[in-house]
Amino acid sequence: MSKSLSQVPGKSELLSVQLLIKPYINTTPILTCKTFNSLLDTSIFFKCENFQKGGAFKFRGASHAISCLDSLDAKKGVCTHSSGNHAQALALAARLRGIQAHIVMPNTSSKVKIEAVKGYGGKITFCNPTLAAREETLSQVQQETGAIFIHPFNDYNIIAGQATACMELIAEHPDLDFIIAPVGGGGLLSGTILATKYFSPSTKVIAAEPEQANDAFQSFNLGKFVPSLNPKTIADGLLTSLGDKTWPIIKNGVSIVLTAKEDTIISAMKLIWERMKIVVEPSGVLPLAVMMENESFFRNKKVGLILSGGNVDLNRLPWLSSQPNSR
Amino acid sequence: MSKSLSQVPGKSELLSVQLLIKPYINTTPILTCKTFNSLLDTSIFFKCENFQKGGAFKFRGASHAISCLDSLDAKKGVCTHSSGNHAQALALAARLRGIQAHIVMPNTSSKVKIEAVKGYGGKITFCNPTLAAREETLSQVQQETGAIFIHPFNDYNIIAGQATACMELIAEHPDLDFIIAPVGGGGLLSGTILATKYFSPSTKVIAAEPEQANDAFQSFNLGKFVPSLNPKTIADGLLTSLGDKTWPIIKNGVSIVLTAKEDTIISAMKLIWERMKIVVEPSGVLPLAVMMENESFFRNKKVGLILSGGNVDLNRLPWLSSQPNSR
Repeated sequence: MSKSLSQVPGKSELLSVQLLIKPYINTTPILTCKTFNSLLDTSIFFKCENFQKGGAFKFRGASHAISCLDSLDAKKGVCTHSSGNHAQALALAARLRGIQAHIVMPNTSSKVKIEAVKGYGGKITFCNPTLAAREETLSQVQQETGAIFIHPFNDYNIIAGQATACMELIAEHPDLDFIIAPVGGGGLLSGTILATKYFSPSTKVIAAEPEQANDAFQSFNLGKFVPSLNPKTIADGLLTSLGDKTWPIIKNGVSIVLTAKEDTIISAMKLIWERMKIVVEPSGVLPLAVMMENESFFRNKKVGLILSGGNVDLNRLPWLSSQPNSR
Repeated sequence: MSKSLSQVPGKSELLSVQLLIKPYINTTPILTCKTFNSLLDTSIFFKCENFQKGGAFKFRGASHAISCLDSLDAKKGVCTHSSGNHAQALALAARLRGIQAHIVMPNTSSKVKIEAVKGYGGKITFCNPTLAAREETLSQVQQETGAIFIHPFNDYNIIAGQATACMELIAEHPDLDFIIAPVGGGGLLSGTILATKYFSPSTKVIAAEPEQANDAFQSFNLGKFVPSLNPKTIADGLLTSLGDKTWPIIKNGVSIVLTAKEDTIISAMKLIWERMKIVVEPSGVLPLAVMMENESFFRNKKVGLILSGGNVDLNRLPWLSSQPNSR
């Protein structure tokens, strides 16, 4: 059991978390690609969290949060609401500790994510795709089971776990000008900010967000929290609002929030698949998409990109707008 | 310049070729995947030639063949006919030596392969998709340009280059029970047979072929060369017949030829994309497909699979049978 974090984790705490979860997670590869370096006249290092267990960085935070439970709490099981990747991650991490995960998922979740949660032994309760419905359903599940709630992002244990992706990137490339992470609820971005602040303070952190789900962009530029209202983007991992633990870290730690149009997100995704031969989900390509929309800003820079995940429904690819006869 | 090979390469010749081309090629990763190990109750090592330069193992052979040209021949440029991957590989290898590649491609080649050849500076001449049309068109191109013909597979320089993929696999995993390579013209398979014979003689080599393009299967089982006649398979890299240099190596060196149905090839491809988050083309998944159709044969074995390439037209994925509105 690890010590649960009740405030913003410090440098030594992140190092402890990294040591603690290292045996359970994949140290993911960092890839380069001549096509993109020459296309954007820059030097890009892709931190491939699509190769993380469960298919996304979320497994880092989930592993840490579950390792923080004492044995009494662990017996009660864990529960959460998630549009997908945190759900898979928590189900897998719970199974590895031998405890039950109860997952509340919006009934609009992609089939591949639902199947994966089931495959990892998670018990799913479906709800309508609104935050209110999620929270209400979760509350019912908690009352019925007594399971401990593990928030997808607004939790210092989760944030510390997500920070380890950036720590691995910095350990290999300590001289990056920028690190770009996608932002939804802000767990990965907050972890990236803390890791960069402690281990590579000269590197600037940039947040990447869909133009059509730009609540972090608005919040950052107005200097006050703006919730996400009915966002519509194919980047289904980036629909949520920031939390009261992630927003203060982001407000003070991010250098700029850049947005990308849906068409650019789709082009970036297809280009990565074609040229790098790796499967990355729409949310995961946001960092590349914002680079493609801001070429001159990044020219001749060394840039680390966090490709956050690779869980895609292969029957519904965004560059194919109509796919009637899939099997 | 390297010594051109006029007969079946020996052990020391393969070692020389490996040293010679090492600076130009990618030493590709060898991945494992718990999903497949548990699904098939076996231990699989995926040699990922989809991460090779040009997107397929073909770059190994092309690099070697081009390095064998003396400076006088090199000035004339090179030419070939290819349904795609050899074309890309030769164009890229030629450009890296600063010489011109002339490529005869069937007019049915996938757009992504055509674009890639153009991107590498290759000059394309299109022809009808028959062997006769390919050879006739190539002959015209040769007469007009004086370029040196580099055969896609029926050439000992090419075979020796392709052997290096298996040499890298054996160097990491010297105790495999089986190595499975796909077979089209037989360049990769012949190289795999030679590398295994010299560097891991207790490992058996298995050829994997589409049931609907089973000329190697027929040839092997009848003990005499059978040409490929109007094959119809989504594995577009495996349409060609064996050659008079590859067939004798295969006849004596392969342990068994296994075939897979089209549906299995498609399932294997989709599963690899979903679970391993890597892009592999239909021809490249044949080794996994034959394992899926012969589970008991491979149970509890250590198996090396050569994932030969990852050049796929992302607008035409085989599990989506109708894609009218791609962009």
